Order: sequence, then structure tokens, then C-alpha cells
Amino acid sequence: MRTLIKDGMIVTSEHEFKGDILIEGTKIQALGRNLRVEADEVINAEGMYILPGGVDQHAHFSFEFMGQRTKGFETTNAAALGGTTTVIEFVNQEEGKGLVETVEDYKKEWVEDISMVDYSFHPVITNPTKETFEDIKNLPSAGYPTVKLFMAYKGQFFHSDDEAVTNALLEAKDAGVTVMVHAENADLIELMQKRAIAEGNTDPYYHALTRPPIVETEATERAINLARFAEAPIYIVHVTTKGAVDAIKKAKEEGLPVFGETCTQYLLLDKEYLSRDNFEGANYVCSPALRDKDDQEYLWQSLKDGWLNAVSSDHCGFTTEQKKMGIDDFRKIPNGAPGLENRLPMLWTYGVEAGKITRSELVDYYAASPARNNGIDHRKGYLSPGYDADIVIYNPFVKKTVTIDDSLNGVDYTTYEGFEQIGECDRVFLRGETVVKDGKYVGQQGQGSFIKGTAYGTAFR
Amino acid sequence: MRTLIKDGMIVTSEHEFKGDILIEGTKIQALGRNLRVEADEVINAEGMYILPGGVDQHAHFSFEFMGQRTKGFETTNAAALGGTTTVIEFVNQEEGKGLVETVEDYKKEWVEDISMVDYSFHPVITNPTKETFEDIKNLPSAGYPTVKLFMAYKGQFFHSDDEAVTNALLEAKDAGVTVMVHAENADLIELMQKRAIAEGNTDPYYHALTRPPIVETEATERAINLARFAEAPIYIVHVTTKGAVDAIKKAKEEGLPVFGETCTQYLLLDKEYLSRDNFEGANYVCSPALRDKDDQEYLWQSLKDGWLNAVSSDHCGFTTEQKKMGIDDFRKIPNGAPGLENRLPMLWTYGVEAGKITRSELVDYYAASPARNNGIDHRKGYLSPGYDADIVIYNPFVKKTVTIDDSLNGVDYTTYEGFEQIGECDRVFLRGETVVKDGKYVGQQGQGSFIKGTAYGTAFR
Amino acid sequence: MRTLIKDGMIVTSEHEFKGDILIEGTKIQALGRNLRVEADEVINAEGMYILPGGVDQHAHFSFEFMGQRTKGFETTNAAALGGTTTVIEFVNQEEGKGLVETVEDYKKEWVEDISMVDYSFHPVITNPTKETFEDIKNLPSAGYPTVKLFMAYKGQFFHSDDEAVTNALLEAKDAGVTVMVHAENADLIELMQKRAIAEGNTDPYYHALTRPPIVETEATERAINLARFAEAPIYIVHVTTKGAVDAIKKAKEEGLPVFGETCTQYLLLDKEYLSRDNFEGANYVCSPALRDKDDQEYLWQSLKDGWLNAVSSDHCGFTTEQKKMGIDDFRKIPNGAPGLENRLPMLWTYGVEAGKITRSELVDYYAASPARNNGIDHRKGYLSPGYDADIVIYNPFVKKTVTIDDSLNGVDYTTYEGFEQIGECDRVFLRGETVVKDGKYVGQQGQGSFIKGTAYGTAFR
Amino acid sequence: MRTLIKDGMIVTSEHEFKGDILIEGTKIQALGRNLRVEADEVINAEGMYILPGGVDQHAHFSFEFMGQRTKGFETTNAAALGGTTTVIEFVNQEEGKGLVETVEDYKKEWVEDISMVDYSFHPVITNPTKETFEDIKNLPSAGYPTVKLFMAYKGQFFHSDDEAVTNALLEAKDAGVTVMVHAENADLIELMQKRAIAEGNTDPYYHALTRPPIVETEATERAINLARFAEAPIYIVHVTTKGAVDAIKKAKEEGLPVFGETCTQYLLLDKEYLSRDNFEGANYVCSPALRDKDDQEYLWQSLKDGWLNAVSSDHCGFTTEQKKMGIDDFRKIPNGAPGLENRLPMLWTYGVEAGKITRSELVDYYAASPARNNGIDHRKGYLSPGYDADIVIYNPFVKKTVTIDDSLNGVDYTTYEGFEQIGECDRVFLRGETVVKDGKYVGQQGQGSFIKGTAYGTAFR
Repeated sequence: MRTLIKDGMIVTSEHEFKGDILIEGTKIQALGRNLRVEADEVINAEGMYILPGGVDQHAHFSFEFMGQRTKGFETTNAAALGGTTTVIEFVNQEEGKGLVETVEDYKKEWVEDISMVDYSFHPVITNPTKETFEDIKNLPSAGYPTVKLFMAYKGQFFHSDDEAVTNALLEAKDAGVTVMVHAENADLIELMQKRAIAEGNTDPYYHALTRPPIVETEATERAINLARFAEAPIYIVHVTTKGAVDAIKKAKEEGLPVFGETCTQYLLLDKEYLSRDNFEGANYVCSPALRDKDDQEYLWQSLKDGWLNAVSSDHCGFTTEQKKMGIDDFRKIPNGAPGLENRLPMLWTYGVEAGKITRSELVDYYAASPARNNGIDHRKGYLSPGYDADIVIYNPFVKKTVTIDDSLNGVDYTTYEGFEQIGECDRVFLRGETVVKDGKYVGQQGQGSFIKGTAYGTAFR
Repeated sequence: MRTLIKDGMIVTSEHEFKGDILIEGTKIQALGRNLRVEADEVINAEGMYILPGGVDQHAHFSFEFMGQRTKGFETTNAAALGGTTTVIEFVNQEEGKGLVETVEDYKKEWVEDISMVDYSFHPVITNPTKETFEDIKNLPSAGYPTVKLFMAYKGQFFHSDDEAVTNALLEAKDAGVTVMVHAENADLIELMQKRAIAEGNTDPYYHALTRPPIVETEATERAINLARFAEAPIYIVHVTTKGAVDAIKKAKEEGLPVFGETCTQYLLLDKEYLSRDNFEGANYVCSPALRDKDDQEYLWQSLKDGWLNAVSSDHCGFTTEQKKMGIDDFRKIPNGAPGLENRLPMLWTYGVEAGKITRSELVDYYAASPARNNGIDHRKGYLSPGYDADIVIYNPFVKKTVTIDDSLNGVDYTTYEGFEQIGECDRVFLRGETVVKDGKYVGQQGQGSFIKGTAYGTAFR
Repeated sequence: MRTLIKDGMIVTSEHEFKGDILIEGTKIQALGRNLRVEADEVINAEGMYILPGGVDQHAHFSFEFMGQRTKGFETTNAAALGGTTTVIEFVNQEEGKGLVETVEDYKKEWVEDISMVDYSFHPVITNPTKETFEDIKNLPSAGYPTVKLFMAYKGQFFHSDDEAVTNALLEAKDAGVTVMVHAENADLIELMQKRAIAEGNTDPYYHALTRPPIVETEATERAINLARFAEAPIYIVHVTTKGAVDAIKKAKEEGLPVFGETCTQYLLLDKEYLSRDNFEGANYVCSPALRDKDDQEYLWQSLKDGWLNAVSSDHCGFTTEQKKMGIDDFRKIPNGAPGLENRLPMLWTYGVEAGKITRSELVDYYAASPARNNGIDHRKGYLSPGYDADIVIYNPFVKKTVTIDDSLNGVDYTTYEGFEQIGECDRVFLRGETVVKDGKYVGQQGQGSFIKGTAYGTAFR
Repeated sequence: MRTLIKDGMIVTSEHEFKGDILIEGTKIQALGRNLRVEADEVINAEGMYILPGGVDQHAHFSFEFMGQRTKGFETTNAAALGGTTTVIEFVNQEEGKGLVETVEDYKKEWVEDISMVDYSFHPVITNPTKETFEDIKNLPSAGYPTVKLFMAYKGQFFHSDDEAVTNALLEAKDAGVTVMVHAENADLIELMQKRAIAEGNTDPYYHALTRPPIVETEATERAINLARFAEAPIYIVHVTTKGAVDAIKKAKEEGLPVFGETCTQYLLLDKEYLSRDNFEGANYVCSPALRDKDDQEYLWQSLKDGWLNAVSSDHCGFTTEQKKMGIDDFRKIPNGAPGLENRLPMLWTYGVEAGKITRSELVDYYAASPARNNGIDHRKGYLSPGYDADIVIYNPFVKKTVTIDDSLNGVDYTTYEGFEQIGECDRVFLRGETVVKDGKYVGQQGQGSFIKGTAYGTAFR
């Protein structure tokens, strides 16, 4: 099967140029100018932008959190619709199981034969024993070259103290595994939450007020200090504050392998969303909390300056019904917001069209860089011959409004409801197969496959 | 009783000038040039330097630590001999007792009628309950305007977590109380100590190797972040690393009330002392650990630049017999080293005579600034009319070598054994009474009295 | 003649305390508490503040500039009235004369037998020859341990290029002479002025617009680079911009002997004064130009942080008639504004009373530090026994409004007209003689004498 | 004519991948994996690296400098041999001529029908008149979107003062023209040179000693300040000092369009080369002067961090005979060193093979980034379909030693004589034509053509 995409504007993280792309089977066979080849299908992409399929390195499906489980891989058609052809899922270590074992079991039960896009995993340490730390060295050969720890959530089973984070860093560096951390100071949050509740402040808005920026800044500085001590790479997930960015910047300027991402919602939304009436604020409860408008500009700039290297969705599909667990106590609202399908169009609309980033930068943040971070850049993230034919034909002429009616996220609201959107994924290929056509999902469950990561993403070498 | 000190070089933290000082009773009555007054005693101080009596804001007497108790206030003649006329002692909160109560009991049992110099106290929080935090507001009226917490020492009863430190900061700021912290990352030390012992590394030298600079730098950054959150002043005791100084500097440049001290031993000694044979290294086990030679220069400069504002002794009189508790396990060596009597002469010799600091700077770091930090600058730290006649006549012509034979520290070694010393306290007055004469202690037990501190030292206003 | 000032609040740059001061002849004989001495006059200073007489290190009298000569030393009673007992004057090198020769001639012609306060001089290089640079080494023995160059004023005889500044720095450092520079980029000003005039913009306001902050920041950075190259101390006069302060700060943090002052008008006024009607704006034409309100806060803070060490007046007494030279071309307005008599009361009112600085800091910036900078701190700037009895009794209870009617500045306007003033100099002593009494000038011409400076002010040692 | 390069490792500034490149006529027609196309020639590039042809944005041919003219475009076969297919030449404005006119005349006389590689130009302002500045707006349409000024060389006709640089910046920004500056403080150099000569120091080594790093750092800071004032982009050529890099970094972090390059010789050589016997040191006389070994590491890192964006050769072909002009006075040695043919192999050997940079980074610094900087990135710098077929097949297996015997630089020495070289350009295509084959130049004079640049290189948009 050969498909020829003709005369599109091909956008790589390097630059853009007008040309053709030939897909043969599951791979990109050629890029050219006026390619004279036969093909089963010839697509005229004049006026369209051709992008690599997105890699979302931070997403949650069938994820159990605070007693609730998010929507699962049966909703990854939302990913495809949003141009994301690979997702990387976090899997909490189960009691009595090793890291690899947990992920393998999880993959069998919740992912295989279900996922509509390609996938990989980040194991999460919850049991800081000698055995667990020793299991880290087995991750690369199983294809999971990252491991995550939660510095936040005091008292929860998945919380890790500094000793655990440091043990992980020490083991991981020898194994070529990258440690990722959710960096928030668990003690400060606990203190503020107790005070808020004691004063009768139970509304969702207090989620933001009890997790002020310093909570993240402090923990990020600390995480980097632990990495400095361990002489190991570290990756800070969902960075939202100037202070946290500055800590990363300082470390990078010292030559340390310290990296971070931010997420779509921190670029576009602010904490006032949490004050919405009728408990609608609960839909915007995620951690770290949404910040102020001013913080958004700094995050955009930090991407451009290279202090942050990726934009993820931190997608979490909880229903409003599930959110109601916290109707009387914001601490019980399941944290997280859906956003998988919106990542590319929101970055395009509020990044590219707003003049904040170039198209090549978008490609880097949403595809190439996450591929490198996770050691899958031998197959994903680039529009180069020999690479998986994960391709997005983006139509920049569409103008519409984000609405739950158009969404495949499986829950009953969208985080970006009412936002203007410029452009959409007209067509998406997953390893050469069309999964989105004319802006509609046309693929099927189980079409996704597991992508093995290699030890130490290129980014950290 | 009137004493006239004539023709000395009077050194204040402002500058120095030749002149006379008249003591009347317990107070300085006048400073002048060729004062023509009658006096009971006239001292010709030509060629001598006249300094205010020292204030040592960080000292330990009768302090129980790791199962051992240090020498007590019966050895404060060593302070007097070293020109220090006021010491400030740390008192660990006792189980079941409030902060004020603990200090009052301690004062009665261990200090009154014993101390040979004036004294004040820093209560130490060990029981982080609501009641304890509420007790903070009672400290100023009792004359104790500071409170200390230990971030180090994981698992010990006096260890405090971030929640406790922050609760203290929040209460203290409203009460005008300054929080002091011992800033070392307890988790990292624990991790390293376990690894060292597991590898059979039990020697004193491993005390230093398991408390590398990052351990202090991290905790200092964190402590300051907690203070930033609480919008409260904070004082970092015994600062030894460039990273910790830089954190203080950054905070001060933001306009935050963040302050720190260093100690004599960190300016003069390095960690190679811990590798001495015959367990002599144990004598140099203190926390934070001694650093490298290179770090010393940065600490001297940090004093001059104002990032650190005082030099204390962190005096701890443990005998070599007591040190032997850790003969098989460096973790059990009681932490601390004596140094009370050496503070002034060592600063003079290795600071002033070495051209690193001026005499006026010495006076600031060792007397005026600690007086301000602790709210006793209405009586102590200055050579001004109306002030307590705590006066040192320093003879700069003496050259000798520090030796335990000359020491009054009550234990069987000195930390600075064999160091050259230029100058000595020829005469010391405590509130007008001569306690040192011709370089010998001539006072008596119980001569010292309690000095009430006022809320928020001038330094923090 | 003995005068006893009793029960005042004595303010030094170190701290303040209640006490008495005894003047004997021209000197301070004693400070005390309840001094029991006989005196010709006893002054009850209860409630008053006792300050050292001010040192204004940057003032112009009988100064020829842009074709006009300012009011001369016959108006230095204004200094006395404002608590300033020593002024330091700039003297432009005359054609065909050496530096020392120029100053000696100037002193004879314009100063001796006229000045009502003590005085010293800064020679200004205008003729960058080998002979002039060699003359620098003769300055200290003549008592002039500073030399100034103008980087601004392209095309004027007193303009110096980088080569001249550097030659001066290289000679001065060996001689113990401190180089002072007026740092503005002459080229940029020239370019902007030509453009402004070409566009018909001739109003005083364009004085400010054609000397934007970058003009000063650039030249300050450059001056410091030249000093860095020459390894010589440098003093930046009248600093007004954040950028210039930051350059000084950076240099100091490297350990370089780089220093700067600001002036009263930059702390209190902004450039909108230059837009006043009826050519009144011309009265506010000084160089550097007045800045924005925002810049004032940074300057106050820079004093507290130690990046700037003195506040001068840069006093220049031009009449409005003289200012009219530039009625058709702002470039011809003689630069400068009077302010000598306002320095202390304005710092008191808008610094101390506004809570921006302490009284001790005021004493440092207006007296002690300028004394040190200019090597006259063996006689001036301190309230210590043996020092010149230059003393201000400041009455903090007076409230009034600055007006030309009360002024002794000799011209027909005041720079601070209409400003509220808290407190005034109730009495001022110049070397023991009363020159101000009950807030009125009571001294006489010729009472001032020359004060020899010593090589390298203490500040630069 | 179709040429197929098969199975090479294709290196772009984005990443690298194994594949084929098809050249059709003068253009790259396709990139692919196992391209099945007919071609006139099929090249097996297994094991080879395929790079875009280099762009050297800083080179001098037929350049008259200090009374001597360098070798001309008849030696650009050296460029081709070193993988550089485009050079950008500086042309000094001639007296009485405009900028465009000068370049057009120069092009006709010295370049057309001679150059063996493609070329473009940077006009240099030497006559700072209103007419010259107005001529800047004509540059883009003529295809020269840059203009250069020399801040160094006091007294030479091509020296520019701050007023001229600023006038150029103000005109250039409206025209979309980028100002480039040679940033050294002309006054400081003059002062040091006079002093050196006066002391009888005439050897080449004094070239370096009289142009210490501060000379460049100061002028770079000043140039950036002028750009800050003018709100215009600026490009600093041949950056060599930490201070200059830091100034660029600071500006970029403020969001200013400030950019810089370094040159091969500053990455590899140090100033001790100037002390070589028999006047050989003269061969290493270039400006800025060579620095110390320590500086090299910082320059490599500055490229990686993005503070510098290109590596040029600053090629200048003077013979040793010409260098002898300065045998008695280093000031008369023509400045400059040849290096055009060595740029790529030296970056490969001492950058890539030494592990300092990746191959993709090399491609960015030596081809893609200079193409962007000069507005020729629509044709040059990338291996993309539709681009000029300027292609280097680099053989990494060759190991040899740099020697004048192999050189085409036209003079009698090489700057890198005796340096080890890993790899060489096995084959080079210039717009599809083979100009190097089997490591030998096989092209002909006049093969190069003029490449029009577009206003504001992509880098500055």
C-alpha cells in the first residue's frame, strides 16, 4: 500500500518546506519535490501543513487515583483525533509486585487490544524497598526507560520521601533510566489544607489556594538538588511556575542533565476557572494547580528558551459525577482534567497563530522532543524516511469552537469548552493507516501497539 | 567604683579612634580624649585595643545530645577568658512541657548561680503540637525572642519536618520571634549513613563524607522557601557552604529578612581533621561537617559582603571519653567541638592579622551583630555611654600557641590545639567587674546574670 | 571654651543612644551619660537628635560651566544651615596649568577667606597630556586624593575619551588617588540631541528625553570595565539608573573597588518636572537627567544594600536668568540645580520619616561615608572623641514647607519648593563654633578652612 | 542529470537517519529509504555521513587591509575542498561611493567569473554620512541584508564611533537589515599599543597582550547597549571571551535579538602560538587575538547553549611575506589567518570526535544557522527537497595531518599545520555539480554564483 501526500508544507522541528511525502506500508518511504511515483492514493495537500504524529508523554488512562479510575484506553480515539499517535501512560506499582511485573500486568489487562494509538509506559514507584530499587535496572530491557515518583500527596501510598527519590536516582543513573518526579512540597500542602478546612473553606477554589506556586518551586529545587547529589538525570513533569523554571535553568547552565515539560492547560488557563459556580470549578482541579495569567507568558518563553522541552496534556478523564466526591471537601476531588485531543489544536491556535511559537517549535514540543525524552525517537517524532508513518495533515483554514459535542474524550465536559480553535487534523496516519479522515475518527480499537523505549532518551545522552 | 581606661585604641563596629573609657559601676559612663576625671583605678591602655565584650549567640552547656551531656555553665570562665561576656544557650523542649516552662526549669537547674558570664536562651521545639506553637507568642515577654528547630537528625525526637518548621514560622512572625534552623537534609544523611555503614565505613571521617555540602545547601534553600511562604524572618545557624550562602544572598536581594551566621571552626578548619589517627578525628565531628579549605575563603568574604552577619562558636564540650561512644560507628559520636574561648583570638589572628577583615568588622561579627540579632543590643555589643561595661582590653603584642594546658573549657582537648595565636584578652570587664586580669580568669561562679531579649532583634526590624 | 550638649539622642552610623557630648575648643572631648563637667554653655538637647556635621562630596561653587558661573563660596552659609559642615568642590584644570596648580590658584581666588564651611577639592582633568597624568602623583601630598573626568559632553574641552580615563586610572592607582567619573555616553547624547533639534524639539523636557537611562548605564558599565582593565578603584558620581547600580553591584561582587553615590534630587524628583510651563522646567535641567518615579525606589534600596555609599547634592547655583541662555535650545541651558541646604532635611523627611532608611543610615550616607571616600575621616564624619566638633542638633518636631524665602542658596528658586519638611537643624557647630542657632545662620565668611585629604579614602583600602 | 546517493547517514540540524538522496539538476529532488529510481550516477555512501554544504558567513578575499590585499576568490577552491559551498565576503565602502555601489563594483572586479563557490556580501560602512545611512534601506532589494561596522582600529578610515554604529542600527532596523559589529575597544588597544611600543615590545606576542579579553568584552557590552537603545537586532562577529558571551546571553534572556558567532581558531588555538620563533607568531596575528586554553571550553559550551549560533573561519589569506610588514612593529602585521578549508574537518575532529558537539549541532553551526542569519535559508543550509544540491559526503574513516602541502589556500602556511584530522570531504556537490571528488578539487573558476539574501535572516524574525 502506497500513499502519496503531495504539495503540502512539510514542518519538521528544523524548518519547513513545500514537498511531498510517500508512505509505503507502515513507514515513510520518501520526501521529495514533485515526486514522480505511483501510489494507491494520492492526496493533494496544497495549503495543508504536514506534521509528524504527536507524542504525549504524560497521559492517564484507566488510572486509579484517590479512589476513582479515569476513562481508559477505549477513549484513545480522542488522541488520534487530536493528532497524537503515541501516548505514554503512568502505572502505579501495585503492592507486592515489582515495577516490570506491574506494568506487564497492567498492559495485558487495560491496554492491549484496546488502545487506538501506539503506547509506552512510565512505571511509578510506590513501595520504596531495596527490591523495588533493584528492579529499576530491569526496566530498559523491558522497554520502559523511565521511572516516576510523587513527592506530593503526604500520607498517600504513592508519596515518596527524599530518601526514596534519591535511592531511585542512584539506581536509575546506572541503568540508563530517567527519573521523573511530580514536584510539590507535601508538607506545605498538608498544612494549608488543614488550615483551609479548619476555617470551613471547602470549595474547589481552595485547591489552588492551598497549593501556591512556592509549593512547586520548593520541591523542584529540592528534586534538582537530589539529582545534583546523585549525579543523575532528572525530568520534572508538569512545570507551572517561574521559580521551578528558574531552578531548571540554573541547573542546565551548570551543565546538569535536568529537564522539564509543561502542559497545555498551564499555558492557556488560570486559577480563576476553579472559582466557577455550581461546582464547575472542580473540573479544573488538577495538580499542580492552575496559576495566574502572568505565569502563562513565562511558560511560553521557557519553551522557546529551551528550559522546558515538551508540552504534554496530563490527560485525566474523570466525569463530573466522579468529581462530586469532593463536593464537601476539595481535598477529595479527583485531580485531573481531560485534554488529549486538544493539545495540538490549542498549541496551534494560541501558540502558532498567536505568534508565540513557530510551527517548527510546535513540532519539537509536541512530537520530536517527547520522542527523544522517552527513547522512542528511532521510530517516532520525525518526518524522515524509514520512520513510522505517523503523519498529521493539518488544515489551517478551519475555524471552530471547542465543544463537548465534538469530543471523544469519554467524559461529559471538555477543559477548553468554548475556546476558539484554528485548524484541525484533517487526516491522521498511524503507521501508514488512516485513523482520522476529514476530521473524523475512522480507526478501530486495538490498532495501537507497544513501542519499546531505549535506555536514556537521546535528550539525556 | 570608677575605672578609667586611658589612651587605648577604641574599636567599634563603626570605626576606631584613640581615647579613654570611664566605667562607673556596671555601666560605661563616658568615652573621651584625655578625660580629666578621678577614678578608683586608672589603666594605661596605650597600644592596646579596647573592644566591647563578645556575644556568642550559639553555644551549648549542659546540653544533652545523643545520650551525652556537654560540660556546663561551670566552664563559662572559658568564655570570659576569650572575651565573650554573654552566651546564648539552646534549650530543647522537654516532653510534656511548654517552651517557656522548659527554659525556666533549665535556667534554675543548670544556669543560675553557676554561669560566670551573662546569658540568654533559644528554646528548641521538639514537640510540634498546637500547644507548642501557641506557646511561641509567650516567648518575648519571657525574654526569649527566638525559637529553634532542627531540620536534621531524622528519627530523633528533636527533628522537625517542613510542616513543623512552617507552623513555627507562621506563629513566630506575629509574635516578633525569630525562627532559627539547623538546616541539613535529614533524608539524604540517613541514606548516606546507611550506605556507609553497610559498606563497613565506620570511621569518623565518614561523618564528613555522609554530610556533603549539598545536604546543607538543599535544606537551607528549603528553609528559606518555607520562610518565603510564611513571609517570616528566618535565621540560618552555622552556615558552611557556598550554596547556602548563595541562597541567603538571593533572598536578601529580594528584600526578604533572611540571615545567617557561620562559626569559627568553619573559617579555620577543614574536613581532613576528621581523618586523624587514633580516633582523634572524632574530636572534629560536628554538624554541619567541616568542609574543604576552599570553602573558608568564601565564608570570610560572605561576612564582609553582609550575607552572613555573625561568627559564633557552636561550643560543645564533650570529652574524648564521651566521643568514644562512636568508636565503632561514627553515627554515635556526640556531635560538637569546644571553641568558646578561642573565638575572639582566632578571629583576630586569622581574620584581622591575616588582612581578611578589619577590627571594626570583627567587633561587628562577634559582638554588635549577635547583640542585635537577639534583641539585647540595648545593653550589649557596643562601647557607648550607658551600656553595660562589658569591655575587653586586647593586647596585640602577645604571641603564643593554643594548647589545652591554657584552656578552661573543661574537657581534655582543644579544637585549635597548636594554632598560633596573636594577641590575647589582657583584661575583661563584665558589667564593670574585672573577670580577667593579666590574661587570667579572676572572676567567680554565679557572676553572670540573665539578659532579657526584646521581640525581633534590631536586625530584623 | 567648653560646651556641653546634654541628653540628646546621639546618632552614629553604628547605632543611636541617649547621652551627652562635651565640646572643648574645636574638638569633641567626651561622650557620656550624665556627664558631670563644668561648661561655658550647657544645652539641653532632650528630644533632639545629635548628628555629625554633613560632608557633601559633590558640590559646585564659582563653577564655570557652559559659559556661566554658578554662585560661589559666599553662599556656603546655605550649607551650614542644612547641616553640612564640609563641602568638596570640583575644579576644572585650566589650560596650560597642572592639576595642583589649578586648584591652588582656584583656592586663593575663589575660596579662602570666603567659605563659611570647611572644604576640600576634586581636580578635574581637561587636558589629557603626559604631563597632566604625571601630575596625578602629586595630588595626595597636596591633600587632593581624588581626580575626576567627564565621559559626557562630546566636543567640550572637559570631555575625556576612554584612553584618557584609562590613563588616569593607571596613574591614579599607584598614587593612591581615586578616579571619579561622570558617566554618560557622549556619542548617544550627541546623536539624540541633533535629532531632537532637527525635529524642532527645543524645550527643556528634551534634555531628559535625549539623555535616557541607557546613556548612563552604558557609560557606567564602560567606566567599570576600564577600571577592571586598569585594576584601579573607581567612583561613579551621581548614579541614577538601575542599570548603573547593577553594574556597580556586579563589580563589587567580583571583589572590585567600585563605588558610587546618588544625589538628593534623584531620590525625590522625576523628569516630569522638566515639562513645567514658562520655562520653569529649565530649573530642573541637570545631568544625568531626572528619571521616573519608579527609579527612586531602586536608588533608596541600593543605598541600603550598600551598592551606593553616599548621597550628595551636586549643588549648582544658577539663576533663572542664567538658565534662559537655553530658552531656544535646551542644549544651552546651564546644567545643574541648587540643593546644598536641603540634603539633610530632605533625607530626613523622605528617608527617615518615610521609613525608608534609619537615622544611622542617614548619618552614614551624608557624613561618615563621604568622609571616608575622600580621606578626611580622621577629622570628619564621626561623633567620636578627638574629632572636629562638627555637630548638628536636629529638631525633629519642626514641620514646614521648603520655600525660596527661607533659602540662603543665593539664587531665585529652590529645587524643592513646596516640599514638606520635617525637622530642621536647630543648631550647628563648625569645629566647636556655633554657625547656626535657633535655625538661623549666625556665622561669618571665611570661617571655613581647608581639610587635607589622605591618599585613598578608607573606603578603598 | 540525476545522481543518487545511497545508504548514507544523512545528518540534518534536527537529527540523523540512514537514507538516500536524489539530486536532479541543481536541486535535491528526494530523500528516501531504499529509493527505487533511475539515476545517471549511483553513489554508495554506506558508512559515509551526508551533510549540507557549509555556509561560511565570515571570510575575506581580495580584501585590502592595513595596506595589504589578501588572496582572492581564485582560492575559493579551498572552500569547496573544505565542504563550504557558500562564502559571505565583507566589502569596505569606498570613498565617494555608496554601499550598494561599492559592492556591485567589487563583485564585478573581484568575484564574478572567478569564485568557485556561491557567494554573498556584507557591506562595511566606512563613511558615516547621512547619505551612507540612508543607503542602508537599499541593501535588501540588492540582496545584501547585513551591514558591518568596525568599532576597533582607532584612527583607521574604517573605524566607527558609537554615534555611527547607532545611526546604522536605527536605519537598519526599519530596513530589515542586520548590523554586524567587530567589537573591540579602540581606545584601550591604542593605549596599550603605545605603551608596548614605548617599552620596546615589538614582537607579535604583544599583539595578544595589547588586546586582552576586556577589550572585546567592553565593546561587546557597549554594542549591545547601543542595540538596546536603538531597539534593533545586532550580530557580534568573532566572539572569543566569556565576558562577551555573557553579555549576549544576558541580552537574549531579556528577549533582545542579539546574536554572535565564534571562529574555528578561537575554539582550537591559544595565544601562545603568537610567541613562536622566527616571526612565525605573526601567522597567528588576527583580531580579536587568540585567547587562553581555558576560554576554548566556554566557547564550545556557548554554542551548545545557543548563546553563539555559528562558527565561521574569518579566513584571511596573507602570505608570510605580507606578514613581514610588521617585523619591527607588531602593529603593522596584517591581521588575519587562513582557515576556510579547515573549518569543517577541524569541527568534526575536535568537536564531534572529541565528544563536544553532535553531528547535528555541527551542521547547525556551520551551515543551517549561517544560512538563516543571512537570509539565504530558502536555498542553503538544509538537506531538504527543493533546496540547492550543495552536499558533502564526509568520509569519517580517513585520518591525516593538516599540512600546507595539501592546502589550496594560496598562501605558504596553514593555521592548523600539524593538527590531526579525522575524516575528509570525499565528495562535494555545488548545486548538483561535483566540485570535489575522492578528496580532490575537480571544479573550475567562475562556477560560483551570487546568492541574494532576504531582509532579516530567519534567525532575527
